[in-house]
Amino acid sequence: MTFRATVLTLYPDMFPGPLGTSLAGRALEEGKWSLEARNIRDHAQDKHRTVDDTPAGGGAGMVLKCDVLGRAIDAVADERPIFAMTPRGEPLTQGLVREVSSGEGAVILCGRFEGFDERIFEARPVRPVSVGDYILSGGEIPAMLFLDACVRLLPGVMGAASSGEDESFETGLLEYPHYTRPVEWEGRTIPEVLRSGDHARIARWRHERSCEDTRLRRPDLWDAHGERSGPSPSGARRRK
Amino acid sequence: MTFRATVLTLYPDMFPGPLGTSLAGRALEEGKWSLEARNIRDHAQDKHRTVDDTPAGGGAGMVLKCDVLGRAIDAVADERPIFAMTPRGEPLTQGLVREVSSGEGAVILCGRFEGFDERIFEARPVRPVSVGDYILSGGEIPAMLFLDACVRLLPGVMGAASSGEDESFETGLLEYPHYTRPVEWEGRTIPEVLRSGDHARIARWRHERSCEDTRLRRPDLWDAHGERSGPSPSGARRRK
Repeated sequence: MTFRATVLTLYPDMFPGPLGTSLAGRALEEGKWSLEARNIRDHAQDKHRTVDDTPAGGGAGMVLKCDVLGRAIDAVADERPIFAMTPRGEPLTQGLVREVSSGEGAVILCGRFEGFDERIFEARPVRPVSVGDYILSGGEIPAMLFLDACVRLLPGVMGAASSGEDESFETGLLEYPHYTRPVEWEGRTIPEVLRSGDHARIARWRHERSCEDTRLRRPDLWDAHGERSGPSPSGARRRK
Repeated sequence: MTFRATVLTLYPDMFPGPLGTSLAGRALEEGKWSLEARNIRDHAQDKHRTVDDTPAGGGAGMVLKCDVLGRAIDAVADERPIFAMTPRGEPLTQGLVREVSSGEGAVILCGRFEGFDERIFEARPVRPVSVGDYILSGGEIPAMLFLDACVRLLPGVMGAASSGEDESFETGLLEYPHYTRPVEWEGRTIPEVLRSGDHARIARWRHERSCEDTRLRRPDLWDAHGERSGPSPSGARRRK
């Protein structure tokens, strides 16, 4: 079964864009996933092909019309989950990426202007998702990001060795820092432990650096990790 | 002064990609910002143009070499801030977007493989930034996302009316839901208050919906908002 992605957008020409290159692009050529971008505007019904209108209650910007969105969704809907990229959505996580990538695909609705008429979320099984706490000009780049994250987890897409198990967020922690040759650069050397060949010591050092960096840079993740792993963050840290 | 973006990447052909269309693309054509994508590989010095090597201490994947990265940065560095897109970074926020968009531009380093040799962060003023808690095949789509967020805030890029002040995260809350015509669709109507013409009542309703949706969907933002606005989240809510 091939992972099938359908993107509903006002800018279908943006696709595949960066998804046509590198890892995702190679996987696309090899038929490991498929991507179709459809124009929401094809589902407008007036002669001006109107897709948006002014916000009820006043205010700046334009809102995507629920009748047009409803028809655009109905034209492609099947068993796949439907997502809408919007800053009002639940945060995208690696857990959601894993869930979607293990399914048969996704339909992704890209917002523009001020967003979607809210009724679309009541009338269709659309799950609003946010890639982060910042504002973009539209949902197209977030859709690319979501799909890139899913595609790299599809069977056969990443190299055999790199399973992604050890990476940031898969463990609830940031990944440890990496080093490679040259051993010395501008007077800075690769930490001695990484050159020791002592695998147990290396694993311990990496875990400690993961913990340390998560605690300092992402206290929110650190607290969540502590709750999951043991009685307290410091408890989690001693566990190993 | 024009906002100047330089992206350091192994895939310069990915750019401008989606940034060449729509809002960011129009602004690019109009000279409201400039974008240059440079190939990190041009700074490799051996005949195989090597940019990466195996991780010190073992493990899967490849690490971008600090000597190559250092030369790539030095070739473009000026007064602009330098960012590296990596899941180990500080989370991108609308505050950081505002800060960067009010400056003269940015240099953005895109990771690939397992990431950067950590020494680059010690030896150059590179600020690691993460767009969210998920893993991608590279930093190119995150760089596009970061730039899209910055560009829409540049003077003259958004329409006069839509300043973005009222949107999600600018207030520390999710934005309220939107509605537009038709008034009735599939038996669902636009909330009565939005059709009342009573601007004070509409503003109150929108604020309440912002609070409600933030509290239910994003308890993390809601807690932070409460701490900022008053003695408790419920206090913040009554304030208006």
